[in-house]
Amino acid sequence: MQDLELLSKVFEILKSEKVFDSSSEDIIFPFKDPDSLKSILNLELSNGSPKLNSSTQEDVLRKIVRYSIKTAHPNYHNEMYAGPDWLGLAASWATDALNACQFTYEAAPVFSLVESFTLEYFLKLCGFDGGEGVFSPGGSMTNMYAIAMARHKLVPGIKRHGMYGQQKLIVFTSEDSHYSVTKSVNWLGLGEENVLKIKTDDTSRIDTVELEAAVVASIAEGSKPLVVSVTAGTTVFGAFDDLNRVADICQQHGIWLHVDASWGGAAIFSERHKPLLAGLERADSVSLCPQKMLGAPLQCAMFLMKHSGLLVGCNASCAEYLFQIDKYYDISYDTGDMSVQCSRKIDSFKLWFMLKARGSNWFGASVDNAMSCAAYFHAAIATNIFFKPVRSEYQFTNVCFWFIPKRLQLSSPAEETKEWWAEVYKVTLALKEKMVKKGSLMVSYSSYPQKNLGNFFRLVVKCVPEPTIARMDFVISEMIALGYDM
Amino acid sequence: MQDLELLSKVFEILKSEKVFDSSSEDIIFPFKDPDSLKSILNLELSNGSPKLNSSTQEDVLRKIVRYSIKTAHPNYHNEMYAGPDWLGLAASWATDALNACQFTYEAAPVFSLVESFTLEYFLKLCGFDGGEGVFSPGGSMTNMYAIAMARHKLVPGIKRHGMYGQQKLIVFTSEDSHYSVTKSVNWLGLGEENVLKIKTDDTSRIDTVELEAAVVASIAEGSKPLVVSVTAGTTVFGAFDDLNRVADICQQHGIWLHVDASWGGAAIFSERHKPLLAGLERADSVSLCPQKMLGAPLQCAMFLMKHSGLLVGCNASCAEYLFQIDKYYDISYDTGDMSVQCSRKIDSFKLWFMLKARGSNWFGASVDNAMSCAAYFHAAIATNIFFKPVRSEYQFTNVCFWFIPKRLQLSSPAEETKEWWAEVYKVTLALKEKMVKKGSLMVSYSSYPQKNLGNFFRLVVKCVPEPTIARMDFVISEMIALGYDM
Repeated sequence: MQDLELLSKVFEILKSEKVFDSSSEDIIFPFKDPDSLKSILNLELSNGSPKLNSSTQEDVLRKIVRYSIKTAHPNYHNEMYAGPDWLGLAASWATDALNACQFTYEAAPVFSLVESFTLEYFLKLCGFDGGEGVFSPGGSMTNMYAIAMARHKLVPGIKRHGMYGQQKLIVFTSEDSHYSVTKSVNWLGLGEENVLKIKTDDTSRIDTVELEAAVVASIAEGSKPLVVSVTAGTTVFGAFDDLNRVADICQQHGIWLHVDASWGGAAIFSERHKPLLAGLERADSVSLCPQKMLGAPLQCAMFLMKHSGLLVGCNASCAEYLFQIDKYYDISYDTGDMSVQCSRKIDSFKLWFMLKARGSNWFGASVDNAMSCAAYFHAAIATNIFFKPVRSEYQFTNVCFWFIPKRLQLSSPAEETKEWWAEVYKVTLALKEKMVKKGSLMVSYSSYPQKNLGNFFRLVVKCVPEPTIARMDFVISEMIALGYDM
Repeated sequence: MQDLELLSKVFEILKSEKVFDSSSEDIIFPFKDPDSLKSILNLELSNGSPKLNSSTQEDVLRKIVRYSIKTAHPNYHNEMYAGPDWLGLAASWATDALNACQFTYEAAPVFSLVESFTLEYFLKLCGFDGGEGVFSPGGSMTNMYAIAMARHKLVPGIKRHGMYGQQKLIVFTSEDSHYSVTKSVNWLGLGEENVLKIKTDDTSRIDTVELEAAVVASIAEGSKPLVVSVTAGTTVFGAFDDLNRVADICQQHGIWLHVDASWGGAAIFSERHKPLLAGLERADSVSLCPQKMLGAPLQCAMFLMKHSGLLVGCNASCAEYLFQIDKYYDISYDTGDMSVQCSRKIDSFKLWFMLKARGSNWFGASVDNAMSCAAYFHAAIATNIFFKPVRSEYQFTNVCFWFIPKRLQLSSPAEETKEWWAEVYKVTLALKEKMVKKGSLMVSYSSYPQKNLGNFFRLVVKCVPEPTIARMDFVISEMIALGYDM
């Protein structure tokens, strides 16, 4: 078949475009502004068929790849994911080609077993005795699952009757938590004003005294605390809320404890860094996103909880035309009705395959290495006059800092005027733009309005592609080279 | 890198396992019950690392593929998707390898443009003048989007205050619609009892007289009609609701009209069959799933609506740390905050690439071919004594029928006793099991409790892999061969 010709060439096309093995000498991608890129790509479609022959098909694909960001480039540090684990990608290509769907044992026998096995494996890792879970498209959806499940457990009648006339349900989270908590509350009909964002301390951990006070106050006001959604690895600073302390509060007041471990959950594989997650086993539910630090190809995220039967209890619509009960095999593997989706992409196999091929020790060692690289980077910039760390300590692999060009370097912090800060914030933007347009280095930037901090850089070190001291050093030298005179 | 070795072999492994080009002589997959399959696959994980070398990696991958269903097999007719379009798959492999994420122009410049271009293309196809949309993981999520958007437009204050104390909001849909309407209503906090399932006529189209009566009655009861969610191509019978008639009702009462065209939306490419969607341009929103009939690799689904600004209005959380407004490019391509998700897989590029490579005429011709094959099959079984069609007419490519083995063939319909029907229903199950266990043919089955119809077969003809008359004939001859003596 002619169509297979292109497919047989994909690996070579990607290889020749340096998707797999770009080096520090290559650019990450050629930046173009939207209008220029549009005219380069020629996105317009026409009716005629067949439109492209196998040679022009290849040209189009190659151009798309060429102008895309090579996330596996050694100097790509822009997001909480980067280039994928290549073994995970091999697994992903296989499931894509099989075009199977996570739904029933009939529709995908192998992948039904793989998903259920993988979920059980991670339930155990979390210290849950039993329980259940579901792969979902991204961390935000898993956080929405948590609130939906907690609501169904607390007031099962809402499924039938809706939120009308209910006692107000309150979701507690920290001001540093991911915005998906608020987005979820909005969709679920709970109202954004019923998300109470608790202040964090100087290390971005939730203030548990204020949390407990807020819980008590909301009960006194006649509301019903629904969920405390804490974070294990916040987006900006990588902070881990004190799970045990929060679990005490939740236990005392009978509140569902959800841990959004989308970013920091990877620590579960490391004997050394697992204490960051101490108390996880006391949670009602957990979000894990192996698509972030562990490098599972996008998308790969899990919602896990220690309760059984709630997924069906909350989500089942019992559509008899799809979920027949009179089947020729054990229907306990027909998990479609446990999900709020119908057909789901196979997200479990790549993760299982990575674990099978590498062994779980490999993941622990990778997390340890990422932590070491982040610690090295933080120590290095702390004593470098071109850098000013935002925090003096970090709990995870996030390192936030400002770049200080020559002209803004001060002899004493006392000289840090408002005008000086305004200049530093401008430098962040200008240097970011310069790095992207040169294509040599990508590091994200962020602001932190909670403490009135303007734009700073945020480097997040991931396990894949494998970080090294040399890569950390490059960030420092390249930023100085580009920003020295700014 | 050793990891790339496996990746470079994936195409050949899949090819040798006949994922791409199995013929009618090959089995679709070797059926095993869950316990046997578990012991064959050896899913257990261990700690040691590295666990597998490149040769055993290949063995594991090969075994997973071997026991998986080959959805591109010519006799696989089990689901509303089948083997993927191979050009779409090539595009999918490329985006997987790039591991990009639909979020901001910064994170994925090329794919931000591709998504926005593709959405605009489909908005125009639907006859929407302007509007906006978003790729979402599957049809169910797009239906949830529709209800969430309609709610935000009708009562924007719910975002802030929740559903408490609101006037009851009613969702109208037909009893033949997809169960995701109910699932969505549950999650959104509207209450399943506030989904009014309107009866369908003998062709499975929504009864518009009853719909209008229900709307009027709900207003009289003090409720507020929120959405009428109709279906263009129902799951079981492929029925198309009368969009123009329903649009009249919605217009008169100021109700959001959503069209779930997840299955039937493919007709939009066919000049000949487009009239099935007459009135689509009058809808407020539409769900399209090119992952179904058109063969775009899973997952590929779009929510489209004719209103602009509502996605941000409803979904934005304005997380300043993620969506900076002081960027070095035009931030109108930063669509992350329009979605209820955060990071999203790149689902648009494979569809755009299929359109680019094939031209849209190809899609029209494919739909016409699928319709012809379905019509041929229906005509063939209507006159064959081994088959009894459930309906005498079909609007789309769904053909539902019972298989009648020799011993149950009657000389007159008058002889169809209750006992006879019970036997026919049993034959459906027994024949299904026989087909699967032989591995020669997969056709799904369904029941239809609304009209008290027991298990029947449902063949759904898709565009990819290309259906032919020979493939239709095989279904007939194989079922007779296996079921003759049942």
